[in-house]
Order: sequence, then C-alpha cells, then structure tokens
Amino acid sequence: MDISDLTPEPISYLAQAAYVQLGAFQGLSAAVAAAPNLSSKEGLSLAAGRALTKHHGLIAEIRRRGAEPSEVMAAFAPALDHFHRITAGNDWHELLLSCYLTAGLLDDFFARLSGGLPSDVGPRVAHVLAEDAGTEVLVHELQVGIAADPMLASRLAMWGRRLVGDTLLVARSAMHASGDLPADESRIEPVFTELIAAHTRRMDGLGLTA
Amino acid sequence: MDISDLTPEPISYLAQAAYVQLGAFQGLSAAVAAAPNLSSKEGLSLAAGRALTKHHGLIAEIRRRGAEPSEVMAAFAPALDHFHRITAGNDWHELLLSCYLTAGLLDDFFARLSGGLPSDVGPRVAHVLAEDAGTEVLVHELQVGIAADPMLASRLAMWGRRLVGDTLLVARSAMHASGDLPADESRIEPVFTELIAAHTRRMDGLGLTA
Repeated sequence: MDISDLTPEPISYLAQAAYVQLGAFQGLSAAVAAAPNLSSKEGLSLAAGRALTKHHGLIAEIRRRGAEPSEVMAAFAPALDHFHRITAGNDWHELLLSCYLTAGLLDDFFARLSGGLPSDVGPRVAHVLAEDAGTEVLVHELQVGIAADPMLASRLAMWGRRLVGDTLLVARSAMHASGDLPADESRIEPVFTELIAAHTRRMDGLGLTA
Repeated sequence: MDISDLTPEPISYLAQAAYVQLGAFQGLSAAVAAAPNLSSKEGLSLAAGRALTKHHGLIAEIRRRGAEPSEVMAAFAPALDHFHRITAGNDWHELLLSCYLTAGLLDDFFARLSGGLPSDVGPRVAHVLAEDAGTEVLVHELQVGIAADPMLASRLAMWGRRLVGDTLLVARSAMHASGDLPADESRIEPVFTELIAAHTRRMDGLGLTA
C-alpha cells in the first residue's frame, strides 16, 4: 500500500520518528533497570541500544537538513511524553508488552511513511528503521511470564488492547491531513487496518487474544 | 606504573568490568529519563550508548572464553548493585556527578589493570575501554548547574568526596590480593594515589574542591 501522500514534511516526520525512538529507548532502559535477572538485562540492553542507534540515526538526518534536533522535537514532546507515561504499565511485564507492541506498530508505521520522504532522505531513514530492533528478548520474557501465570495472560490481553488504541493515535497525529475530513478518513482507514492486522499477529505470537 | 600483578584472573576481571559498564549505562539512562531538556537528553543518551557498547564488548570477551556472562557476573552483582544504589544521588546533578566521577575512575582503573590480562584478551579489552565515554555532556551540564547555583557547588563538592571513597572500594575489591596484607597494601597504595590524583583533576575541572 502506498501511503506516501500521508507523509508530513521531512523535518516534522524526522522529529516525531526520532522522538518515538528516544521514548522506546527510555522504556527499554527502564525494563533493563527492573529486570529480574542478568540474562534478561543483557537482551533488553541490546534492544535499548538498537532504539538508541535509530534515535541517533534520525537525529543525524535532522542535522543534515540544517535543523537543531532538540528544537524541532520540542513541539512533539508533550504529546509523546504523555503517550509514554500512559503506556509505561504497572509492572515489568506490562512495560515489556508496551515496548514490544508500541515499537512494533510505530517502527512499521514510520517505515511505510518514509516512502513519501524526498529521495535524499527517505531511503536512509528506511534503512535506519529497518535495522533489527532486537525485540525477541521481549517475546521470550513475555512467553515465560505467561506460561508461569495464566492470570497474567488475561491481564496482558487487556493491556494490549488498550495499547493499540493509544499507539494508533500517535500514528494518526503523525500523518499529514489535507483538512478535508471525509477524504482524510478514507485514506487513513486502510493504513490502520494493516497496522492493526500486524498488531494482532504480534498478540497471537504471544498467545494473547487481540 | 605497572600494576599487572594486581590483575585478577581474566573471567573475574571481565565479569566485574562488564558489570561496572552495565551499571554506568543504567545510571546514564536514569539521567536521560530525568533530563530537563532535549539537548541534554541527546548528549546523555550518547554517553549511555557508549557505556552500553563497552558492556557488550566485554560480554563478548566473556563468551569468547567459553563462559556465560550472566553466570559469571552474578557473583559480583550484589556488591556492585549496592555501590550503584548508594552512588545514585538525591537529584539529577548528584547523579550526573556520580556518572562522571565513578566512570572516570573505574574506566581508568580497569584500563590500567587490563595490562595484566593474557595477550589474547588484554589488548582487545584495553581498546574497548579506551573508547571515548562521551562524558563531556556531564561536565557541561554540571558546570551550567554550578554557575547558576553556588549552593550546588558546595553540595556537589561534598558528594564528590563521598563518591571517591565508595568507588575506590570497588577498585580495591577488584584487585588480586596475595593474602599477605602488608605486601598488598604497599602494592595497592601507589595505584590509589594515581586514581585519586586523576579524580582531583576531574573535580578541579568542575571548579569543585576535592
């Protein structure tokens, strides 16, 4: 599906994509700090490093276009900080699920949207975002936790349903809107359908009902 | 100064050095999360990434010697977790000073100690530890904070004095002891003198009395 007409202007795109990766890094760092054992710390710290590398890759693109990253990201910080706060979860497993599902959906979304960027930046951004996020450790830890505690599965299923709604709002606000509401809805709808389908596959992979 | 006779056996060295870098990463990640603005977040996240890279470089050396990192680090985790807890500080500036001074001293210490490792691992470890820690951002933020608040300078000077004591204990416990106490003291003493001199230069650079 070509969603390039929904891509905002490059600086706006880069600022949001970079700040989303910073948020992913912060979530994964918190998961490292709270990890119950050293082997999960190792895997989670690798994933945190991957998000950080993406963040710095996108920051570099902002500088390359002559803008100051902290200035252009500032406009998006309040909404994204709020998003990260409400998706942080109440315990370690909720945080892990959040890291997995929100990064999965948003990496996917921004990668698709990068097709609408100018050719001097889009391919490099696509490359940055396509790097392995190292999130197998999240799947593994979630599967272990779910297998040990059936109650956790139902709690996480509910948590996953809530996360997808909040995450789609972030995606929606990052898309360029023409201002013609019915037309915008009809362009955005199929994108959401695909993002939700991928989200459902992630939930299925964990044995959770989406 | 040659301190190679104080180097413990390689796995013990690598496990402690790797866990120290993990602790540095966690301290810097916490500093990113608590940073008051986006430009300090950017610098701090780079420094966090550097500590993480060192951690994973040392982890790789543990694996190369056939050991499992999480197993060999576990023996040192309680003492080092305690160290990181008591050196975390009560606010952002104390945390920054701690990240700067403890990493400065311990990177320096482990780099010197790497001279006593076998030649199939020592030079690679020295290379990993010699990578720029990206800590100029810590110096910058501390200088800005101190310039804006003279009370902060005296509080941080006291905090720095406490940090050096706790950090030297970590260094001491990482050194190989012969068991002959007077002889060990006389070997360790000049190492401590050099580490403290470098610490004093770091404090001076911040305008703090060591």
